[in-house]
Amino acid sequence: MWRDLAPIGRDAGSRGYRRYAWTGADADCRAWFRAQAESRGLTHELDRNGNQWAWLGDPAAGDAVVTGSHLDSVPDGGAFDGPLGVVSAFAALDELRARGARLTNPLAIVNFGDEEGARFGLACVGSRLTAGQLTIEAAHKLRDGDGVTLPQAMEAAGYDPSAIGPDPERLARIGAFVELHVEQGRALDLTGDPVGIASAIWPHGRWRFDFRGEANHAGTTRLADRRDPMLTYAETVLAARREAELAGAVATFGKISVEPNGVNAIPSLVRGWLDSRAADQATLDTVVTGVEKAAREYAERHGIDLDVVRESFTPVVEFEDALRDELGAILGGAAERPVPVLGTGAGHDAGILSASIPTAMLFVRNPTGVSHSPAEYAAEDDCLAGVAALADVLEGLACR
Amino acid sequence: MWRDLAPIGRDAGSRGYRRYAWTGADADCRAWFRAQAESRGLTHELDRNGNQWAWLGDPAAGDAVVTGSHLDSVPDGGAFDGPLGVVSAFAALDELRARGARLTNPLAIVNFGDEEGARFGLACVGSRLTAGQLTIEAAHKLRDGDGVTLPQAMEAAGYDPSAIGPDPERLARIGAFVELHVEQGRALDLTGDPVGIASAIWPHGRWRFDFRGEANHAGTTRLADRRDPMLTYAETVLAARREAELAGAVATFGKISVEPNGVNAIPSLVRGWLDSRAADQATLDTVVTGVEKAAREYAERHGIDLDVVRESFTPVVEFEDALRDELGAILGGAAERPVPVLGTGAGHDAGILSASIPTAMLFVRNPTGVSHSPAEYAAEDDCLAGVAALADVLEGLACR
Repeated sequence: MWRDLAPIGRDAGSRGYRRYAWTGADADCRAWFRAQAESRGLTHELDRNGNQWAWLGDPAAGDAVVTGSHLDSVPDGGAFDGPLGVVSAFAALDELRARGARLTNPLAIVNFGDEEGARFGLACVGSRLTAGQLTIEAAHKLRDGDGVTLPQAMEAAGYDPSAIGPDPERLARIGAFVELHVEQGRALDLTGDPVGIASAIWPHGRWRFDFRGEANHAGTTRLADRRDPMLTYAETVLAARREAELAGAVATFGKISVEPNGVNAIPSLVRGWLDSRAADQATLDTVVTGVEKAAREYAERHGIDLDVVRESFTPVVEFEDALRDELGAILGGAAERPVPVLGTGAGHDAGILSASIPTAMLFVRNPTGVSHSPAEYAAEDDCLAGVAALADVLEGLACR
Repeated sequence: MWRDLAPIGRDAGSRGYRRYAWTGADADCRAWFRAQAESRGLTHELDRNGNQWAWLGDPAAGDAVVTGSHLDSVPDGGAFDGPLGVVSAFAALDELRARGARLTNPLAIVNFGDEEGARFGLACVGSRLTAGQLTIEAAHKLRDGDGVTLPQAMEAAGYDPSAIGPDPERLARIGAFVELHVEQGRALDLTGDPVGIASAIWPHGRWRFDFRGEANHAGTTRLADRRDPMLTYAETVLAARREAELAGAVATFGKISVEPNGVNAIPSLVRGWLDSRAADQATLDTVVTGVEKAAREYAERHGIDLDVVRESFTPVVEFEDALRDELGAILGGAAERPVPVLGTGAGHDAGILSASIPTAMLFVRNPTGVSHSPAEYAAEDDCLAGVAALADVLEGLACR
């Protein structure tokens, strides 16, 4: 399976993936998914929001066991983030058939559309629409960097954008959704386990800091006469690192926009985006409040106007205890020691769906912790351990 | 004159000027210049490098007195930087005629092309080419942000790019060049003088700092596992301010480029440009060496690879003593106290030409010191004082 999927949307220069929603690379990934489904005799179905489903058994029977992930990528992303969950789903089904498992429940493999949000700036569009966490009106307003709207992009790709919207009937048929994903940190590497179970997705948010000063000539303006917002930005970047370290959280300024962005011009505006996440809400609040307080003090000192806008926020997602314990019992029975249960700072379709249906996640070890990068990696043995664990879980849930 | 020139290339949103070389706004400025020349009976001439000349008297007679400046702008620049020198030149000629001055030398008013370098990234292209300080090969390689080369842009504007190159015959005809310019700092405001004479242009340069770390997921990568170049950049920005303060110089990080520049991605590359200037070479060396040393220490600590490239450098320009003293004598005779002589951190066509011919500069008071911004300003009385001073200088130099 990997051989056919690996070349799709890969940039020859960076060796990273550029599989953005409703592009040619996305269409190629979707064709691959459909071919995998049909070669296994599964029924391929495209839902109203552009998510792909491959069904074994009658979808209308109810209490379906669903697994899968996504095939799109961040800019210059790695090979595993998303695809590992889809490939492992098909491989786990092959394993169940090899074992001669007799399924009592319908089983489906899903490919959620536009999980990374690389094109339209909002993550998990496919699952959000399905779960009713993104309104049709808001979805219609999503635009990519070239000004193309989501409906225009869907139409250009041959899909009917007028169909999008909540899909509660579909969700009502699902008894459990289990998403397998490459770990995006090093927790399993540090504990020495190939596979782990998710406990929760950390609360996280994005805050935009607009530092406004005064554009001026970089060669002739005395330091004392300057209102240079780059200085305030720099101090705030360092404050974010300090606050995160103190709180045991993470905080990152990874995106910046500067006006006029000229070598010989003191900027009039430096816009920086803070991404911060922590194990619980109180800790996250402490970090963000601390960064903003420090930024306001620096801004005051340099004569800078500061606006802070929360652009997005996702509260903590605690995966359902019962399903998580069931996975622990299924996997723990075969292992020499309990499978580790770990939180994560990354968002997932499973996090979106957990508000509507029982969901759980499996993580496969990432020896370097590198993610959203061409250097992202998982060892073959660990991937196979992931497939075996997923097969065990599906067998446990769908053969009762 | 201002009424016709003011609307050209002005952005309705920012109220700043966007007069970039070889664009429509540039063509409109050039048409304005030609109309001003012809309405005064001056001979309009376009030289091989696209600079405009308006001649009174025979250019071939030699020992010409030339004044003027430029009409192009930085992005969202002010109304005075450049145009004040051209408008004042025409106004000073009107004043000389009103005085009934009898010129013994030919006189010319010049509009140098592409002084700001806003489009092709190199300042003073028109005067550099003329003075032989920019090779034809290097000029051919200049590209704007859309990939359009300088020859393509010239051709699109109806000029013959094959003609560009050094123009020593033209320079040999000039006995003195005097450029009037709005001051870009507050020195005259602090001394309380409407007009000053330039002593020197500070040495200045641009250095590119490439901080390379490792792209990674902003939500899942432990702080301890990060190689985040934004932190090193931030520390370097603050170090530059410190070093400049200690040395009595200026240092600015006003332009930045980040990869991948995603909210949830630790950057792989932060590229920042340092602009630094000082009254003398030794001081400038101290500042830049200090900033680079600090940056290397921070980079070492964070596991960041750092490359520092000097992208451009202009040594100190000391304007010719004899001509400067002559201006001082001409203006000092009429004034109650000596006209102040001051250095500047900004580059000018006069600085380029000073290597080839006797040049001098007059500055008009800028009460706020704001430059390269829509808020740039000079009071009407000060502008009129500038015209009177320029007329005195031209009369002193061209009527002997």
